[in-house]
Amino acid sequence: MADRESIATSRFKCTARDRACYEAGIKMGTIYHQFVGTPVCLSNVDDLERSIENAIKVQPFVSDAKVKIDRLGFVKDGDRYSYKSLTGEMIDAVVTIVLENVTLVSEMRYDPEMGYPLMFISDIKE
Amino acid sequence: MADRESIATSRFKCTARDRACYEAGIKMGTIYHQFVGTPVCLSNVDDLERSIENAIKVQPFVSDAKVKIDRLGFVKDGDRYSYKSLTGEMIDAVVTIVLENVTLVSEMRYDPEMGYPLMFISDIKE
Amino acid sequence: MADRESIATSRFKCTARDRACYEAGIKMGTIYHQFVGTPVCLSNVDDLERSIENAIKVQPFVSDAKVKIDRLGFVKDGDRYSYKSLTGEMIDAVVTIVLENVTLVSEMRYDPEMGYPLMFISDIKE
Amino acid sequence: MADRESIATSRFKCTARDRACYEAGIKMGTIYHQFVGTPVCLSNVDDLERSIENAIKVQPFVSDAKVKIDRLGFVKDGDRYSYKSLTGEMIDAVVTIVLENVTLVSEMRYDPEMGYPLMFISDIKE
Repeated sequence: MADRESIATSRFKCTARDRACYEAGIKMGTIYHQFVGTPVCLSNVDDLERSIENAIKVQPFVSDAKVKIDRLGFVKDGDRYSYKSLTGEMIDAVVTIVLENVTLVSEMRYDPEMGYPLMFISDIKE
Repeated sequence: MADRESIATSRFKCTARDRACYEAGIKMGTIYHQFVGTPVCLSNVDDLERSIENAIKVQPFVSDAKVKIDRLGFVKDGDRYSYKSLTGEMIDAVVTIVLENVTLVSEMRYDPEMGYPLMFISDIKE
Repeated sequence: MADRESIATSRFKCTARDRACYEAGIKMGTIYHQFVGTPVCLSNVDDLERSIENAIKVQPFVSDAKVKIDRLGFVKDGDRYSYKSLTGEMIDAVVTIVLENVTLVSEMRYDPEMGYPLMFISDIKE
Repeated sequence: MADRESIATSRFKCTARDRACYEAGIKMGTIYHQFVGTPVCLSNVDDLERSIENAIKVQPFVSDAKVKIDRLGFVKDGDRYSYKSLTGEMIDAVVTIVLENVTLVSEMRYDPEMGYPLMFISDIKE
């Protein structure tokens, strides 16, 4: 098999900076749409955070990933129906992409002003 | 809030045994449809197995959950495109349900004779 | 390839009734964990309902599936952030399973008394 | 509520072009990680294609979305286990993003040279 990175690069009709932004977006879409719906409560929330981080780090060009899940809705002595389904509003994620000479930080969190779980680029350096 | 288990039980028009089987099915559907697609390779496979187990244990009536992911397709010194997306064929899961006087074991794994990732009840005791 | 239904049946260590309940649970877990998180608003909600129904009907032993998504949170003249992510609380599903001589109806909907999106068996006949 | 687009824009520390690339990536991650795992066969494949397209069009800045699912593995007269679970390798998607003065085309399809379902930017114009 030929060098797959050369083949991949040849498919992109844009700059390395464009691609870095694109790769960041893919990761945010992955975090949200792969994991929203997962059963979560105090007993597995730490574990789920690590697991999302580690899954995202498997994807291309991710140099770091931090995920925090909002524990506000969790109860300590609930019944068997007290767990939650992970929602986008509960996720706080910071993902760093390094691609060629571009370093980019992307974040996702519930934006109270917007009433929307916004994904955005908070820093990009060439 | 009233006792939620009494309310839940009142909604079911069937026996405890029927419900135990039903609850087992829900868990198998959850494992498959929540986690299929997750990026996975040697670096996060142990972690993902634990995370699926722990998420399933959060759901009602699960007394135990064991998940193994097939490592056959994984490579040690691959490039950045060498990871896999989790498929149903890669999952081996054993979930134990305890509901009232019923104990049930449900399993999911690729059945080579069928060419299909079969979910089934391997044991039920009242 | 041998008759796959005979192979599947031989894996189950339980009655046809048990299996019908189990198969119903799988379908409910599928609806929830496959589709929760899907972007939805007035423009695609009818379409998404049909698509979930049709996907579930593909699974074994489903003779009928009806899905309704709660439109209460949808707005008519919103901005580009006004769509929703599908949640379990928004789903009302009724799935009929027919397996050998067993006919079973399973339902999922938000139970206001429980504050929980309950999946349950509402009818079973042998 | 203030104009949400102004708030969103203020969160992005990058150009409109960067954001267009990022938004395209989010959509590709959504298609893959929301829908991989969905039960699909000849009876619902057209329907699922439309449903993915329509769900993606609900997301911000999508002006067009075309999705084709590979029918090669489907059989006409199969048994009840002959359906497939949607995989990334089966998806061919073309999504057009328009954001301010930027128009961008993003594609996803299995790349046989790479042996990988590649997501890439095939065109970008300012």
